[in-house]
Amino acid sequence: MKHFQIHPADRAMAAAIQEKTDNLNKPKGSLGRLEELAMQVCLVQQTLSPSAAHPCHLLLGGDHGIEREGVSVSPREVTWQQMINFSHGGGAVNMFCRQHGFTLRLVDVGVDHTLDYNVIIDRKIARGTRNFLYEPAMTEEQFDRAIQVGSDLVDDCCEEGCRIICIGEMGIGNTSPSSVWMHIFGDIPLDDCIGAGAGLDAPGMARKRMVLAKAVERFRESEGTDPGTTTVLRYFGGFEMVAAIGAMLRAAEQSLVILVDGFIMTACALAAIRLHPAAKDYMVFTHCGDESGHKRMLDIIGAKPLLQLGLRLGEGTGALCAFPIVDSAIRMMNEMNNFQNANITKYF
Amino acid sequence: MKHFQIHPADRAMAAAIQEKTDNLNKPKGSLGRLEELAMQVCLVQQTLSPSAAHPCHLLLGGDHGIEREGVSVSPREVTWQQMINFSHGGGAVNMFCRQHGFTLRLVDVGVDHTLDYNVIIDRKIARGTRNFLYEPAMTEEQFDRAIQVGSDLVDDCCEEGCRIICIGEMGIGNTSPSSVWMHIFGDIPLDDCIGAGAGLDAPGMARKRMVLAKAVERFRESEGTDPGTTTVLRYFGGFEMVAAIGAMLRAAEQSLVILVDGFIMTACALAAIRLHPAAKDYMVFTHCGDESGHKRMLDIIGAKPLLQLGLRLGEGTGALCAFPIVDSAIRMMNEMNNFQNANITKYF
Repeated sequence: MKHFQIHPADRAMAAAIQEKTDNLNKPKGSLGRLEELAMQVCLVQQTLSPSAAHPCHLLLGGDHGIEREGVSVSPREVTWQQMINFSHGGGAVNMFCRQHGFTLRLVDVGVDHTLDYNVIIDRKIARGTRNFLYEPAMTEEQFDRAIQVGSDLVDDCCEEGCRIICIGEMGIGNTSPSSVWMHIFGDIPLDDCIGAGAGLDAPGMARKRMVLAKAVERFRESEGTDPGTTTVLRYFGGFEMVAAIGAMLRAAEQSLVILVDGFIMTACALAAIRLHPAAKDYMVFTHCGDESGHKRMLDIIGAKPLLQLGLRLGEGTGALCAFPIVDSAIRMMNEMNNFQNANITKYF
Repeated sequence: MKHFQIHPADRAMAAAIQEKTDNLNKPKGSLGRLEELAMQVCLVQQTLSPSAAHPCHLLLGGDHGIEREGVSVSPREVTWQQMINFSHGGGAVNMFCRQHGFTLRLVDVGVDHTLDYNVIIDRKIARGTRNFLYEPAMTEEQFDRAIQVGSDLVDDCCEEGCRIICIGEMGIGNTSPSSVWMHIFGDIPLDDCIGAGAGLDAPGMARKRMVLAKAVERFRESEGTDPGTTTVLRYFGGFEMVAAIGAMLRAAEQSLVILVDGFIMTACALAAIRLHPAAKDYMVFTHCGDESGHKRMLDIIGAKPLLQLGLRLGEGTGALCAFPIVDSAIRMMNEMNNFQNANITKYF
């Protein structure tokens, strides 16, 4: 796969950032998480005057072979139907992008349908992955291409002056690979990693558990007990998920702030961090949903999510909902008066 | 005091609201808290197409006699200094109002300073309340005027077409009356209601506890063990706090959505609900801060806050930060496609 050079965010200017923050006209620390966010964004952008200009949202679509095993409440066709709906502006993701001024890039990385719509960017690698109950979801070559697709999309955003990126996904069945990645990378019992996705009932959950356990068992048989990270990723991953990892890594390399969404994008973030631990410096974890295990995965990463709104829609909606809070942190650094300018008695 | 006629939000159209929500093209319930918010806002506004047009923020300023007892880390002069800073646009409240398109009304309800600035609305009742360690903070006539001031301000907002209102406060020392109200209205031990305000140290906390305990003891001696709600409010309250209660009650009467901010505004909301229980239907509780007891006060009200960002600045900043989430809920109802329009297989 493509090589990324990701450096930890340089902390040399941390003291200067803290000093500027402490001199804004408010009791020290009184803007709580906003002050922590401001520190992170300033360090990522290496500035005392950070910017949220030209935020971009990548909505990556792909289908999953494992969906054939009935692990999702929604039928596969919903992936392409929703992609078309997004292309018309009728989805939740469109609404949130409009609300927060995001440029939306709608990308077909592997949808099982011909999506001949101008607004949908065609980066299709195949019409869905293969079924990981029987074989690896993708070839090495497909994996490399998916990483590259994500990386190139970030470069397109950067050319527009984007400094903050958000990544979402549309792919019926994609909680399944996410659960398996969490199980393997987090060393957490598989059952604790499996949730109801978009709304499975008890028999559906039982089926999902059985299918994923069998798939992991076969994987262990063929790949051994200590497979490499990329082996795990390509065996179970979706094209949209691997592209998201490529996007995250390139965004970190380019010093963008990455707004990480819910369960599936957190699984991708976990994978990206395994490949390049310094990538975490660039990530803001925006939302903890109700999907079983999401909080646990955030704990593994050591992340404290900004929001807990019970969202389980995907599409990057949690990350988009959190954007105004990150924007507030950025505005705080740029727009608030300091004690001296405001002629206010400095109090601590 | 002024009489308010507050009816519970009529739930007759709840089924129609739920049906519309369930037919939006997303898995049922997958937008979590946004769907709950949409239901509340639709019921308040009695419509399937709610509006967040012309949001207004009331920033009410007032000083407190109890501040003379050293219960706050900040000196009294910070109240008027900050009011002037807000009038120049340099405060956190200004920044958030600009970010979210709020009209800011900056109101002097009882600041201990002559604030001869055009942009500051003069509704001064007195130059600060009296010291409730020795006497009631305000007279009955002052209390009635403060309620009326808040109510009239809401009418001004309504004339602009405002459907969502946010209320914030600036008043050094105002966590003290808030703690006492919580103690008396919530029947919670006084010590559990007292926090560090803007950043008291341990000796400061001990002093605050002692002063408030003494004040409550004297109040009990003079007013008996079962005083009326308004007696408690005028004995301890600040002008800006009582005006906030008047604003909340009038906003409920006018069927506005009320975004309730942190500890102090939650104490005002608790008081408003005691006066008119139906007022709660109109309130969105936006933020739970770290101030000791805030969560407990929200529990008494039965409220689940939207955000937990560790803010403790006041000014209504928590409520303003939560506005985009309420706005998202409103946009969901107006902008998202339903399954039929989007030609998507309906899945549950």
